Amino acid sequence: MSDKKLWSGRFSEPTDAFVEAFTASVEFDQRLYRYDIQGSIAHATMLAKSGILTLDERDAITTGLEQIRDQIESGNFEWSVELEDVHMNVESHLTKAIGDAGKKLHTGRSRNDQVATDIRLYMRDEIEIIRTEILRLQQALLDTAEREADTIMPGFTHLQTAQPVTFGHHLMAWFEMLDRDRERLADCNKRVNIMPLGSAALAGTTYPIDRHYTAELLGFDRPSENSLDSVSDRDFAIEFSAAAALIMMHLSRMSEELIIWSSAQFNFVDLSDSFCTGSSIMPQKKNPDVPELVRGKTGRIFGHLIGLLTLMKGQPLAYNKDNQEDKEPLFDTVDNLKGSLKVFADMIPAITCKHQSMREATMKGFATATDLADYLVRKGTPFRDAHEVVGKAVALGVTKGCDLSDLSLNELQAFSDQITDDVYEVLTLEGSVAARDHIGGTAPAQVRAAIERARQRLAAE
Amino acid sequence: MSDKKLWSGRFSEPTDAFVEAFTASVEFDQRLYRYDIQGSIAHATMLAKSGILTLDERDAITTGLEQIRDQIESGNFEWSVELEDVHMNVESHLTKAIGDAGKKLHTGRSRNDQVATDIRLYMRDEIEIIRTEILRLQQALLDTAEREADTIMPGFTHLQTAQPVTFGHHLMAWFEMLDRDRERLADCNKRVNIMPLGSAALAGTTYPIDRHYTAELLGFDRPSENSLDSVSDRDFAIEFSAAAALIMMHLSRMSEELIIWSSAQFNFVDLSDSFCTGSSIMPQKKNPDVPELVRGKTGRIFGHLIGLLTLMKGQPLAYNKDNQEDKEPLFDTVDNLKGSLKVFADMIPAITCKHQSMREATMKGFATATDLADYLVRKGTPFRDAHEVVGKAVALGVTKGCDLSDLSLNELQAFSDQITDDVYEVLTLEGSVAARDHIGGTAPAQVRAAIERARQRLAAE
Amino acid sequence: MSDKKLWSGRFSEPTDAFVEAFTASVEFDQRLYRYDIQGSIAHATMLAKSGILTLDERDAITTGLEQIRDQIESGNFEWSVELEDVHMNVESHLTKAIGDAGKKLHTGRSRNDQVATDIRLYMRDEIEIIRTEILRLQQALLDTAEREADTIMPGFTHLQTAQPVTFGHHLMAWFEMLDRDRERLADCNKRVNIMPLGSAALAGTTYPIDRHYTAELLGFDRPSENSLDSVSDRDFAIEFSAAAALIMMHLSRMSEELIIWSSAQFNFVDLSDSFCTGSSIMPQKKNPDVPELVRGKTGRIFGHLIGLLTLMKGQPLAYNKDNQEDKEPLFDTVDNLKGSLKVFADMIPAITCKHQSMREATMKGFATATDLADYLVRKGTPFRDAHEVVGKAVALGVTKGCDLSDLSLNELQAFSDQITDDVYEVLTLEGSVAARDHIGGTAPAQVRAAIERARQRLAAE
Amino acid sequence: MSDKKLWSGRFSEPTDAFVEAFTASVEFDQRLYRYDIQGSIAHATMLAKSGILTLDERDAITTGLEQIRDQIESGNFEWSVELEDVHMNVESHLTKAIGDAGKKLHTGRSRNDQVATDIRLYMRDEIEIIRTEILRLQQALLDTAEREADTIMPGFTHLQTAQPVTFGHHLMAWFEMLDRDRERLADCNKRVNIMPLGSAALAGTTYPIDRHYTAELLGFDRPSENSLDSVSDRDFAIEFSAAAALIMMHLSRMSEELIIWSSAQFNFVDLSDSFCTGSSIMPQKKNPDVPELVRGKTGRIFGHLIGLLTLMKGQPLAYNKDNQEDKEPLFDTVDNLKGSLKVFADMIPAITCKHQSMREATMKGFATATDLADYLVRKGTPFRDAHEVVGKAVALGVTKGCDLSDLSLNELQAFSDQITDDVYEVLTLEGSVAARDHIGGTAPAQVRAAIERARQRLAAE
Repeated sequence: MSDKKLWSGRFSEPTDAFVEAFTASVEFDQRLYRYDIQGSIAHATMLAKSGILTLDERDAITTGLEQIRDQIESGNFEWSVELEDVHMNVESHLTKAIGDAGKKLHTGRSRNDQVATDIRLYMRDEIEIIRTEILRLQQALLDTAEREADTIMPGFTHLQTAQPVTFGHHLMAWFEMLDRDRERLADCNKRVNIMPLGSAALAGTTYPIDRHYTAELLGFDRPSENSLDSVSDRDFAIEFSAAAALIMMHLSRMSEELIIWSSAQFNFVDLSDSFCTGSSIMPQKKNPDVPELVRGKTGRIFGHLIGLLTLMKGQPLAYNKDNQEDKEPLFDTVDNLKGSLKVFADMIPAITCKHQSMREATMKGFATATDLADYLVRKGTPFRDAHEVVGKAVALGVTKGCDLSDLSLNELQAFSDQITDDVYEVLTLEGSVAARDHIGGTAPAQVRAAIERARQRLAAE
Repeated sequence: MSDKKLWSGRFSEPTDAFVEAFTASVEFDQRLYRYDIQGSIAHATMLAKSGILTLDERDAITTGLEQIRDQIESGNFEWSVELEDVHMNVESHLTKAIGDAGKKLHTGRSRNDQVATDIRLYMRDEIEIIRTEILRLQQALLDTAEREADTIMPGFTHLQTAQPVTFGHHLMAWFEMLDRDRERLADCNKRVNIMPLGSAALAGTTYPIDRHYTAELLGFDRPSENSLDSVSDRDFAIEFSAAAALIMMHLSRMSEELIIWSSAQFNFVDLSDSFCTGSSIMPQKKNPDVPELVRGKTGRIFGHLIGLLTLMKGQPLAYNKDNQEDKEPLFDTVDNLKGSLKVFADMIPAITCKHQSMREATMKGFATATDLADYLVRKGTPFRDAHEVVGKAVALGVTKGCDLSDLSLNELQAFSDQITDDVYEVLTLEGSVAARDHIGGTAPAQVRAAIERARQRLAAE
Repeated sequence: MSDKKLWSGRFSEPTDAFVEAFTASVEFDQRLYRYDIQGSIAHATMLAKSGILTLDERDAITTGLEQIRDQIESGNFEWSVELEDVHMNVESHLTKAIGDAGKKLHTGRSRNDQVATDIRLYMRDEIEIIRTEILRLQQALLDTAEREADTIMPGFTHLQTAQPVTFGHHLMAWFEMLDRDRERLADCNKRVNIMPLGSAALAGTTYPIDRHYTAELLGFDRPSENSLDSVSDRDFAIEFSAAAALIMMHLSRMSEELIIWSSAQFNFVDLSDSFCTGSSIMPQKKNPDVPELVRGKTGRIFGHLIGLLTLMKGQPLAYNKDNQEDKEPLFDTVDNLKGSLKVFADMIPAITCKHQSMREATMKGFATATDLADYLVRKGTPFRDAHEVVGKAVALGVTKGCDLSDLSLNELQAFSDQITDDVYEVLTLEGSVAARDHIGGTAPAQVRAAIERARQRLAAE
Repeated sequence: MSDKKLWSGRFSEPTDAFVEAFTASVEFDQRLYRYDIQGSIAHATMLAKSGILTLDERDAITTGLEQIRDQIESGNFEWSVELEDVHMNVESHLTKAIGDAGKKLHTGRSRNDQVATDIRLYMRDEIEIIRTEILRLQQALLDTAEREADTIMPGFTHLQTAQPVTFGHHLMAWFEMLDRDRERLADCNKRVNIMPLGSAALAGTTYPIDRHYTAELLGFDRPSENSLDSVSDRDFAIEFSAAAALIMMHLSRMSEELIIWSSAQFNFVDLSDSFCTGSSIMPQKKNPDVPELVRGKTGRIFGHLIGLLTLMKGQPLAYNKDNQEDKEPLFDTVDNLKGSLKVFADMIPAITCKHQSMREATMKGFATATDLADYLVRKGTPFRDAHEVVGKAVALGVTKGCDLSDLSLNELQAFSDQITDDVYEVLTLEGSVAARDHIGGTAPAQVRAAIERARQRLAAE
């Protein structure tokens, strides 16, 4: 027993077998092995620099840990639930391999600061990967938006035809959402990349450690300021989860649109066969599984966020066992987020845009009614009065079952004598989009300019 | 390809490899194999009774499925991600094993109603197991409450000493919470135990199926009333998750109390070594890991509930791929809930109650102040005036650093001339608890009566 | 000061002014006045029956409280933040009005059991109102479903055309969701309608109270079993909130469908002008505001559920001030739920169904492909083979841009020689829906039978 | 009718009365009036600069809006539910006051971009106020931490005595949490302070507007890049809510500690009477209401966060009526957050710290066991062996009911012959804390250095 539980000196009864399995974390925290070993090597290097370990001990530890990493990666490492977690598994193997030097590795630290360090190293890496994946999706959007900068489609509010926009403009709206996400993750990383190591159990340690040196070795911006806070803090996981929830919310909105646009009724886009699956019973089905699944995964990520917040609510300082529950939701968030971004970045370029169908849809629903009101304003009618005039013309169109541009000049003039035959120009789709010619507007020239600015922004990073 | 994807007739491009893995569910839904096979056997039996299959085909299917179940349980079944899910894996193996009869099994059903049936069978079983586990914990509480029916401890409100109660009474409060949980799960099961099978993809099927017969074979209360609803509905999963969230909330409250009571400052209870672990750095530590971990797991279950609600929000009918995301949170909820209940049922009887320490704590904090007010009311003072008189006596006690029973009769009489020397009787702890002698009150006789009623209730089920 | 704070005897400093406002609940809990007074009258009646009050005192209290109720309802009651909450406001006014008898009302109870009683009385009433509102919406659905029992529309899975269904069948799916909701609320009410009064602060009271009598007076099923639990328990609020979240989730799904169906592209339904609003800028807009707003309110109700769960997580027994935070989310849930149900019940009968447009949509998307597969099965082809044959025929239809019924017999026979000229009958929409003729199926006869069963169910309650 | 609904031209039926109230937002969005008017004045100024309005029109609008602001602030403005929202109420009053110029104000904008602008202006102000309130609380913590830099108390992990720390060190942990919060809000504000105005309904406008100029007038960092995104985006509200949830989570942890510390059993601190209230029944009670209520409010803020995320999930672009539901949770978050921070900033300086009680508590629970292990390491024992030795010494202490420093030298030497009589020095509390002398450690010198660094950081902003 005593060579199993490294903390069992003061205990008289062994741990209940079910409790051992119930409280162990090694099943899921073993994925941190790489960061655990990276942290331990830096810690040993610092201990040696500070005279707490000999150089020989440091070298034995470093070599031993590297061998353990190789064993894990080649599948030759036996994980043990009795040893609770990744930390105890690695340390125990190390001591078996190199003897007394291994027993000295835990000098001046605790599992409390060790695990906090491991997760931060893990998150720093994953944030970098996720930001790159977002960038890849953004590039796909830029390319597609450029291709479709002149493609006219109905812009919707309330899922009712509102005004003509270009498909390129719509895709650039998606781009902007993701740009905020990428920026938000960079801000989050500022609070991730702080080193808790050296906080030990909760109060710091009595050894003459050099935390600035360890921080430098591990690429952290700085050591943390307060040991009690350092072992208690899981803000970084929650802030990351909130950023992840926003990303998934964005993907869910894109998904919703792709699903609606793929319906037989909208028929705006066609997703590649490679991103769809069929039905076990209905032979004709080609389902937009990928956007649906991503939309579905949104709930899961929201759930993890609320789970982590609830986890921390009301916990007294410093470390409590509750905190062990931080890892699974975090890992699952990272995995699903990366998968969702990857599949979107692959899928977007393979979307076929149905120009004719989009155009026909834009002809319905009085998309240029606002243009008519603006026309009247330019002729001198106050906007509110123009709005009412056009509203009545629309009511006539609804009754007759035709669009505004199908009404005769006589019919239109019955609503306002300021309407002359130049009115039909403002009712064209091309004229409508081209007229929204200011920063942020849907005019193709503005969309191209926005794409150009975006490319420069990305290149400048 | 065509023998892999059973729905690929209308597709011209193969599924993207990452998409295949991303959208497959077999990694997690394989745990439903037992229910999938149970449902398929009942379906085939009904198809044969209705003349849609021959008896030979039915027998081949039944035998084939039972063999597959054996293979899965003995670890000799090869799951394939290409085959997407548990349903397609089982059906594909069946057809390989028994030929054309296997291809006929999917007649008159779809994966949409099949998976809904599988989950309901699974949930019905798990609800039964969970209710039994709650019962086991309730029994442990009853036994311990009976043992501690006379044990006096401080009752708290706002974590401030309020009035003396008995430990048995406190444990019976926990019992009541769990009793509601058990009743709630039984109510939930009424809405779980309805059979969707026969709804097919969404509209029912053109075969002359007998859904009442299949429902009878599978032990469902009745077939569902509407096919569109049946394949879209995940209410049962959400209602169960909400019930699970309440159970975990209850366990989190018990955990909080056990943790506080185990502190050196409260020192009311001692958890068995078997349910605690130590520290990697602090040799003296014996930590109440089990209640802490259970308290921590509460967040996770809350998260799954919100995840499932979000999943369903705004989905148009009928089945959408989003719904595939229902399983992992549900499975994780079931697993963690069962583990938490089990570990509590094991831990409770092993708690040592520190009677002396509880008693001493009850002497602090003016626990019998309300008894003094009630004493004055019995002597004729209106309650509000009595309250104020005692408040002033307490203020004197705070100043002198002593309890009410330590004040002299003279001192007490300075606040009210209705106080005579019989006052000291109402200030005893035993007198205080015994006086709360009505249903629900903390008097030991009432606690014992409540235990007796509870035992009868449980026995009557 | 002392006539303001009824508990200030032991305090030497007054409450901070901001703290007084921050901790007061009277701004929102005053809406419970009616239940507070109802509970107090029953309490006084019981105290008199038990000899704790005189009959004169009882009558003075009853009359005084009834006058206060009248004052509140006529707007002549002055609420005071200094008096913290509805309970203290009412009691303080009572004492001013009737003198010493008022000071005796609080004998044998506490605000802890008083507020728990008030909320349960409130919830019991509101549950009844909400169940009635659901019923009204269900009746509207039954009537509309009956009217549209033969109306053919495309049934969707993955928002792709799946199989023809009837609009009546679709509306009956909505009916079923709501039927579960109504049943769930009835189950919830079993756990609401238990009386905490008499639990006093946490331990019961030293007066010879008769809790069964008070319960009877107030129409509760029984007094609660444990005083500690009774003042700590907010399960009923959470269970209700979970039921409310499910209702809103259901309404959000109906809303999503109404919004999609109202789009120019689907054009399946027209919402009455009375339930839509326009745009400040786009004169042609008629927006489906009501379903959108209801869909939006879903998040709010989910949020309140998680808020209440979080509130209770980890709270030690018995009452803590945290619990004051239960009321606002509960009230807001009740208000928004009732409003959403009411507006739906009003809106549904005013929906115009566009039969022609629905029918044309059903002609697209190979809605009868499954019927063709079933036809082949009846001719002897195993289902899986039939599925593949039809998949290939669909692929030809996609290439040719036509539906299955537009393919010539020769073309169809190229896929299977079992196809003969009777095939075109199974490809009609009427034939397709009529063929799904079993309980739960979309055949008009089945829909009418389901409506009839539903009417009987509702009538039987 | 037509002078009521500014969009009613195309409608033939009036809005249902209940729908009108149900969909109106003026009850809660009127609190944005100040920002709405600020935005409108800037918009009119830009329109005049761009030649779309005359200077006279601009002046009439500006003066008219300023008068409306005065009317609102003096309570002389009549809000109308028929006019739906703050925007229509203000505009309608303006037109009544100044005539045709008022009808021109809405030229080149829509309520969609208008409300997005209003909320961002509101949030920018509130973020600034909240950051200042956090700062005030941080200052209170710095002052108290400095005062208590030498005060020894038990540091806890798992609520079990872990190692001695100083109270100043503990308060500085709270400071660090809040410092992250303040930094996070500053990052959030970068994404808040972008101007959507000019995006109009969704596509931009046909007027020659100058969005850079309006942005400059309103103090925004820049105009937004994409009109579709601008009217759809509520990220800023969600990101703020997530930051608010973290702040409340932090306050909930501080609250939990204050509540536990205020218990008779811990008795570490005394909250001022001004921040506590009493009981209606128990005359002795002095309850820590403020921290309890703040802990309770945490759930509400978590709920609003999940409510907002759910609100946006799956919404297609651009604006939908769902978005109206963003305001109430946001306003309630702001109000409760500000109140909680204010009450904490007021309460902290009024906390009395009970030094003697804290010190006595630190003597229990073997707080210096780690120091003994470190002592053995310095004598040459590997850490893991030292840990086990001390564990056994602790077990003896538990059996004997005494602390490590109460064991005789003989007794200690039985566990390790490296122990000599200098051991008792490392077992003192002062020695223990002073030895943790590195950045982040609990040594009083380090705590003072951390306070000094913190003061410089705050001063440098």
